Amino acid sequence: MTVPLPPHVQPVALPHAYRLLNHGPTVLVSAAHGDRLNVMAAAWNMPLDFSPPKVAVVLDKATLTRELIEHSGWLALNVPPVALADATFTVGSVSARDDTPATHPDKFTALQLAHWSAPASVAGTAPPDMPMQTPPLVTGCVGWLLCRLIPEPHMQQTHDLFVAEVVAAWADERVFTHGKYRPVADTPPELRTLHHMGAGLFVVPGQQVQASLLTPAPD
Amino acid sequence: MTVPLPPHVQPVALPHAYRLLNHGPTVLVSAAHGDRLNVMAAAWNMPLDFSPPKVAVVLDKATLTRELIEHSGWLALNVPPVALADATFTVGSVSARDDTPATHPDKFTALQLAHWSAPASVAGTAPPDMPMQTPPLVTGCVGWLLCRLIPEPHMQQTHDLFVAEVVAAWADERVFTHGKYRPVADTPPELRTLHHMGAGLFVVPGQQVQASLLTPAPD
Repeated sequence: MTVPLPPHVQPVALPHAYRLLNHGPTVLVSAAHGDRLNVMAAAWNMPLDFSPPKVAVVLDKATLTRELIEHSGWLALNVPPVALADATFTVGSVSARDDTPATHPDKFTALQLAHWSAPASVAGTAPPDMPMQTPPLVTGCVGWLLCRLIPEPHMQQTHDLFVAEVVAAWADERVFTHGKYRPVADTPPELRTLHHMGAGLFVVPGQQVQASLLTPAPD
Repeated sequence: MTVPLPPHVQPVALPHAYRLLNHGPTVLVSAAHGDRLNVMAAAWNMPLDFSPPKVAVVLDKATLTRELIEHSGWLALNVPPVALADATFTVGSVSARDDTPATHPDKFTALQLAHWSAPASVAGTAPPDMPMQTPPLVTGCVGWLLCRLIPEPHMQQTHDLFVAEVVAAWADERVFTHGKYRPVADTPPELRTLHHMGAGLFVVPGQQVQASLLTPAPD
């Protein structure tokens, strides 16, 4: 039996996956290991390569999500829209290491955040020595990049910087289609991406500018 | 004699420097070595630490700017606004390695891009064994992070990823003041930051959202 994707979710071809992050949105980082799962926010992320697509993300040592990633070798970057601004701020402000109502037993449960899983066909592509512990994909996001950790122990320890290869990606077709984001004016305001300024204040794309190539000055 | 800073340019306290990049703008990367200087665009950048502030940026092996940085150990990240959209697209589309009118002898000269230099007092803070070859700071940008390369040879070679420590920062006070960006509504449209979607298409912050912390679900 094939489990259908959630409504509006469509696969993104891997060579286009970097475009989900190219304009600098804040993401949610999710992971699972054994019977635990969790999610955090990360403004500090960027694409690292086109094809195969790779990403870099900064994960503080204090976070449980980092520990789950280090143990499982898998993570997802989820691109949250305006409709998830409060959830994004909250999962970025509390830690499941603190056993409070806001985090117990994990932030998905405590905050009633829904999630979905990659189709089994995607999990089947994992190398035999690194079976996929499928990261939870956050419902209501507009883009998802399912990634396999590329271990870089020195960078992880010294700079909290993690590198991963994107093995599958999806997007909400109302926001991103045919390998790119739709024009801002055609994107419902609640589905636009979030760009964190600090302290829960986000800026949101409101216009777009098409640049032209300059002509060089005469000698 | 003290050379004044350009109009509207004010120093940014180092612990606030990461906030210039936190929301994901595309930057211009500039560098100088010997009698050469150059500039390129980089959408793939992110803060890496708060204090001392560090940044990460992806620099393709084909670029002359990367070569200047590898030789000098110094670079600047310049945050261009809408008014520099064409310049940003152009310096990101042509290489000074190609000896064309658009790049000869360097992109500053060919495209008539003005630049300014960090005050001598900043250069004086460089370690004796690593004298500052002051990167050109691009006039008309709204933020500048002057950085010293932290050599990470494996990451540079394998992933084109460069790590640097920010040693001084400045911002245009019309855009960023008291350690943070002004509200979008108070920022003139031509001074807002650029977030590259691809092929010269940029999105620009147009609204902002203040998130609230969610209350956990009852057990």
